[in-house]
Amino acid sequence: MPLRQREKIQTLPRQAELTRERHPTIVEDGTYVLILDQTRLPREAEMLRLTSLDEAAQAIRVMQVRGAPLIGATAAYGVALGLAEDGSDAHLGHALATLAATRPTAVNLHWALARMQRVLEKSAPAVRRNVAWQEARAIADEDKAANSAIGQNGLPLLKAVQHAGRIINVMTHCNAGRLATVEHGTAIAPVYAAHAAGLPLHVWVSETRPRNQGLLTAWELSEAGVPHTLIADNAAGLLMMQGKVDLIIVGADRIAANGDTANKVGTYLKALAAHAHGVPFYVAAPLSTIDFECATGVAIPIEERSAEELGAGTTPVANPAFDVTPAHLIGAIISERGVAPAGALWQWQP
Amino acid sequence: MPLRQREKIQTLPRQAELTRERHPTIVEDGTYVLILDQTRLPREAEMLRLTSLDEAAQAIRVMQVRGAPLIGATAAYGVALGLAEDGSDAHLGHALATLAATRPTAVNLHWALARMQRVLEKSAPAVRRNVAWQEARAIADEDKAANSAIGQNGLPLLKAVQHAGRIINVMTHCNAGRLATVEHGTAIAPVYAAHAAGLPLHVWVSETRPRNQGLLTAWELSEAGVPHTLIADNAAGLLMMQGKVDLIIVGADRIAANGDTANKVGTYLKALAAHAHGVPFYVAAPLSTIDFECATGVAIPIEERSAEELGAGTTPVANPAFDVTPAHLIGAIISERGVAPAGALWQWQP
Repeated sequence: MPLRQREKIQTLPRQAELTRERHPTIVEDGTYVLILDQTRLPREAEMLRLTSLDEAAQAIRVMQVRGAPLIGATAAYGVALGLAEDGSDAHLGHALATLAATRPTAVNLHWALARMQRVLEKSAPAVRRNVAWQEARAIADEDKAANSAIGQNGLPLLKAVQHAGRIINVMTHCNAGRLATVEHGTAIAPVYAAHAAGLPLHVWVSETRPRNQGLLTAWELSEAGVPHTLIADNAAGLLMMQGKVDLIIVGADRIAANGDTANKVGTYLKALAAHAHGVPFYVAAPLSTIDFECATGVAIPIEERSAEELGAGTTPVANPAFDVTPAHLIGAIISERGVAPAGALWQWQP
Repeated sequence: MPLRQREKIQTLPRQAELTRERHPTIVEDGTYVLILDQTRLPREAEMLRLTSLDEAAQAIRVMQVRGAPLIGATAAYGVALGLAEDGSDAHLGHALATLAATRPTAVNLHWALARMQRVLEKSAPAVRRNVAWQEARAIADEDKAANSAIGQNGLPLLKAVQHAGRIINVMTHCNAGRLATVEHGTAIAPVYAAHAAGLPLHVWVSETRPRNQGLLTAWELSEAGVPHTLIADNAAGLLMMQGKVDLIIVGADRIAANGDTANKVGTYLKALAAHAHGVPFYVAAPLSTIDFECATGVAIPIEERSAEELGAGTTPVANPAFDVTPAHLIGAIISERGVAPAGALWQWQP
């Protein structure tokens, strides 16, 4: 019997979710969790059942779920799955350690695990399982609400670059759309808000080698009816030089206290080109992505991923998954609290 | 019977060539031409026989041969193949027009065709076939000599960045190695010269989406025993930020009179990052790549290639094959004549 059962969409536990969105990124019924397996997109949209801590950790590790906010929510549910047998300190400690080791760069993972730990250590072992499901659900619900607010907060920035009713050309990198979150997306949330408001939009979608997460962005924009064009990552500079990009919005995996931002590798090159051409460059992320413990981008660990992702056989490969964009290249950071200069995040410090 | 016969390497006409280099990019015997089919590399190294004008044009169009200098040489041989039946003005005109239409950006193509036309129009139709083979051979031989000189001229620039005997970390983009030329390469010629001189080297090879010509560079560096590491194009900025790149050398498809340089798309992003981090950025190309008729980079046509190269099914795609790096981001241009600031190419004007 396979370790994980692959399920058809009609077996999902929460039918109410499905009428609103055909393929939710994550849903649960308090016993198990279903995720949309993003390693199979855009070829097929298939839900995958997670029934244990190890399955949740593996899903994060191999990027069946990816995107900082969604990783955080999945990790929270992973803790709940890890307490299925009992809520002992030993089980809790093991669950937290296993999940923390899956991906080094995304701070939401550690933020979500710290929040679960804080709540669960205050609870008696006997009730921890229920408390864990509740807290994970709260994290997921707050993610939806935060991203919806990011969309509304970013909307005026898109309106600001529109000239005389013309199409607004947005560029993004990787996938920071709804597939990277529980719902709405981060970088793409303002795009969805603008689309809903009837603004004419077109999105340049960067392929995002080596994992090609741009294809995920193209897939979800297509599903939402937002016009878009896929490009090789290499084409971003030329398009800006040709005046075909009005603004850039990307997500973030970790934002340092000074505004330096770790995001999918290649983001930095786009920021440099945006700076050279006066194209506004924005980072959209929930507050949970800001690591106030981390003074500058230099302290952010950069995950090195497998050589196999480049698919080059025996050729020696280096495969850093993220890069750091210095705060001075970032026009503003958009969060659920509003829009702030990258150098003034202290105003959002808890 | 297939249009083109695929041949084993032992059927090559000039065995002398083979002892020196296992897979020459192009060889001929005055009747037909054999090319290394670069669309099959690095999977297999297979020679392909060109017997007609149309086969030569198709080889350039579908990039079985690529790289500005090699395109020029192949086009010259294509003219010779086009005069096999007779050397009439009609045949000559048809051959020149057919080959000129294959690739818009590479100036060497037009340079080589103009040179063939100049020589052949002065010859009687009866002898044109022989003259065409001679002139094409001269173009190929001059390419070898020019690239060898580029290697020697670039060598001091590599020596200049070496600190205390440490390994010199070179970054390149696309393939401007021997596979892009008749021999020696352009951007990689100084690397080969340094390797032959015993300098310790390591080359960062950018994958170069969407055609992945970086794999060609990795293949030829591997064949030559030069240490190298393949990276996603997106990783270039991070590596420069981390101080892991000592200098960048790229080739060129067309250099405008003011030094603006069209090269494989993605070159511009590397130049911007090099500028931000004080990494020397050089363009290596033979004089035939400089288009003194073209005042600035704005006038260089950018070839748009097929959406299929991105391999994204029905997703809308934009696929510009080149971008333009402004002269102010280029530290120097290395040609067979020496090393010159990008803004001072007038000194090489014929």
